[in-house]
Amino acid sequence: MANPVAVSTGRLEAFSDGVIAVAITLLVLNIHVPAPPLPPGKTLGHELAANWPVYAAYVTSFLTIGIIWINHHVMIRRLREPDHMILFLNLLLLMSIAVLPFATDLMAAYLRQSSGQNLAAAIYGGAFLVMGLFFSTLNRHLLLIKPQRLRQEIPLERRRQILARSVSGVIPYAIATALAIVSSYATLAICAALAVFYALPISSGGTAAET
Amino acid sequence: MANPVAVSTGRLEAFSDGVIAVAITLLVLNIHVPAPPLPPGKTLGHELAANWPVYAAYVTSFLTIGIIWINHHVMIRRLREPDHMILFLNLLLLMSIAVLPFATDLMAAYLRQSSGQNLAAAIYGGAFLVMGLFFSTLNRHLLLIKPQRLRQEIPLERRRQILARSVSGVIPYAIATALAIVSSYATLAICAALAVFYALPISSGGTAAET
Amino acid sequence: MANPVAVSTGRLEAFSDGVIAVAITLLVLNIHVPAPPLPPGKTLGHELAANWPVYAAYVTSFLTIGIIWINHHVMIRRLREPDHMILFLNLLLLMSIAVLPFATDLMAAYLRQSSGQNLAAAIYGGAFLVMGLFFSTLNRHLLLIKPQRLRQEIPLERRRQILARSVSGVIPYAIATALAIVSSYATLAICAALAVFYALPISSGGTAAET
Amino acid sequence: MANPVAVSTGRLEAFSDGVIAVAITLLVLNIHVPAPPLPPGKTLGHELAANWPVYAAYVTSFLTIGIIWINHHVMIRRLREPDHMILFLNLLLLMSIAVLPFATDLMAAYLRQSSGQNLAAAIYGGAFLVMGLFFSTLNRHLLLIKPQRLRQEIPLERRRQILARSVSGVIPYAIATALAIVSSYATLAICAALAVFYALPISSGGTAAET
Repeated sequence: MANPVAVSTGRLEAFSDGVIAVAITLLVLNIHVPAPPLPPGKTLGHELAANWPVYAAYVTSFLTIGIIWINHHVMIRRLREPDHMILFLNLLLLMSIAVLPFATDLMAAYLRQSSGQNLAAAIYGGAFLVMGLFFSTLNRHLLLIKPQRLRQEIPLERRRQILARSVSGVIPYAIATALAIVSSYATLAICAALAVFYALPISSGGTAAET
Repeated sequence: MANPVAVSTGRLEAFSDGVIAVAITLLVLNIHVPAPPLPPGKTLGHELAANWPVYAAYVTSFLTIGIIWINHHVMIRRLREPDHMILFLNLLLLMSIAVLPFATDLMAAYLRQSSGQNLAAAIYGGAFLVMGLFFSTLNRHLLLIKPQRLRQEIPLERRRQILARSVSGVIPYAIATALAIVSSYATLAICAALAVFYALPISSGGTAAET
Repeated sequence: MANPVAVSTGRLEAFSDGVIAVAITLLVLNIHVPAPPLPPGKTLGHELAANWPVYAAYVTSFLTIGIIWINHHVMIRRLREPDHMILFLNLLLLMSIAVLPFATDLMAAYLRQSSGQNLAAAIYGGAFLVMGLFFSTLNRHLLLIKPQRLRQEIPLERRRQILARSVSGVIPYAIATALAIVSSYATLAICAALAVFYALPISSGGTAAET
Repeated sequence: MANPVAVSTGRLEAFSDGVIAVAITLLVLNIHVPAPPLPPGKTLGHELAANWPVYAAYVTSFLTIGIIWINHHVMIRRLREPDHMILFLNLLLLMSIAVLPFATDLMAAYLRQSSGQNLAAAIYGGAFLVMGLFFSTLNRHLLLIKPQRLRQEIPLERRRQILARSVSGVIPYAIATALAIVSSYATLAICAALAVFYALPISSGGTAAET
């Protein structure tokens, strides 16, 4: 019988859902309205269009958090009951998600600057990379170290396969982060392409594919 | 039997509820307190009254998000279990809702400006239009393309009828968006009237009528 | 049998909980950190102490929202299944709660101003008054107009008694609002006293007493 | 049989989860992006590095709120059904958690100032201390005053032991708060060390150990 004082999988899911839902919705606070009245010669259309890095980073981060939410649910649903290590690793994962509104804001603010743009892009790609690493670490703990806590027995072969997908999903983010040295646009473009690729239901490989 | 690693309808609802609840509550951050002390000759009453577009846009957006929440629940409750395409379309729908605090802020800030007011109103009406289109697309996917995922069998005739209502609910928002070229007030007035009409329990047609 | 496409009481509760939880937590955004470094001759202690209206309004609003959450739960738990009118009245109630961070900020900003303080206090007391009125309207709809939707039959006598308590809980807020003409301090003091009185478990009358 | 109009433990958990999830995620709003373009001679790396107190306070507060969430769940899960006193004490506990984004911001802003740093650190440590005291008070009420409301009977000896751990977990925060007179760095260092110690699954004593 389950220990009556332990944290249930249900409440772990509810709390994680809450943090992820708040983080994904807070992203909108990064999109600012140009203060009216506009200076002569400026139009609202021009001002809004000039903000395109904000929208690109918004959509990229929104879709990426949405994908991690799907993957998180798939992962946790395999779990019968968390132990303290799982709670701790999940908390680190949530922290890496909760910090994304800042990383997104930083990326959008510096994308087209002549100074700081590479570091901002590296932090943006790096934030996704860290999130993916925490996700894989938690997944590894569940699948390989504590398989007795799974809801249903899964053959070792299959568990290794699931984990391999998790880990391989991290690689493109490592590349996106490394490319920040070359160009902040390259980092954003890769992250955006990954978000669309994983979000689109056609993809049958990679992080989101477990679903 | 349901696939044990899929996302459950319950958690899809919980996450969507979270995003919608945060978005609807974040709207209040658009209402600013006039900084005290007020300049001589200005009264708080005058300052607050001058902000009426902020309140009008707030109430309109709050009611509209409230209606979409009701409709979302009615739609998802028909579903037995989501597939990846449903998760993806739902994520797009949530993104179109999460962006409304920005569109609302933009509308309120530019309603009475002599420059930018038409574009701001078009974006406001357009945001509702896009939300309605994503809603209808998701509904169409559920009702016509994946009816085998419904909790209960619904006759094709009835499914077409439900979808027709969803789609026809989008038309007034298209009109409101188009009228932004003429007047930002017209757009806000139509959106406000629609919010009140759909929210009021007397209405028996249109988007909210499925309930 | 329940209509399979209606909104369930469970999801109505979950969404309301979400909005109330976000609104109560957003209150903290009204408490600002004095920008360092402080001007010479000013100490952090002095600056923070000068902000006491912010803390007083924060605690008052936090406790009041907490009480309305308890009462909301008690009210909704009696309900078997909501109809459209209940969803609409609940949405108005949630709007009156979601707007409290603004009313709280306004009250705190103008409490000690020589101009605008009475109007700010009237809006603060008035916001609680409107919230109480929406609560009572929803309660009346549930208890007197749609008693067939209650989970358990309740004798008419008892239903009238519960409603009378709801309505009488509104009276002190009407007084607090009216007294704003005399003094903004009086309004805040009454609202704070009511929050403490209803929150404290000793109280056995008034709005919170149903629990 | 349970009183049908009381607040259920399930909804108490859901509301508390909501408030804690919002508070922990709002912490990110304290991390500001340096406004571009940077003044000549300043680099983004330097600007971000200079903000290290913000990140240190962020991680400390995030982990501490995460730990209190775990402990809160363990505590509430023992409860069969709350009474009004439990709801009231829980509301105070939630208020002490909801205020942490402010205390964190204050700490980060003043850590390295020559004036105000001690008071800011005392408020930061004091906020955790108050949170711990409210937690222990609620735990004491559940375990010693209302043991008949527990889901399962627990021997008095064991209940005293659980409570002793709760209370002893408060002591280091009292020390951290007192040390603020000496150094704001000492307070932050102790709070950070406690967060890591309690969060890490190796710890088998202290507040988080009940899990």
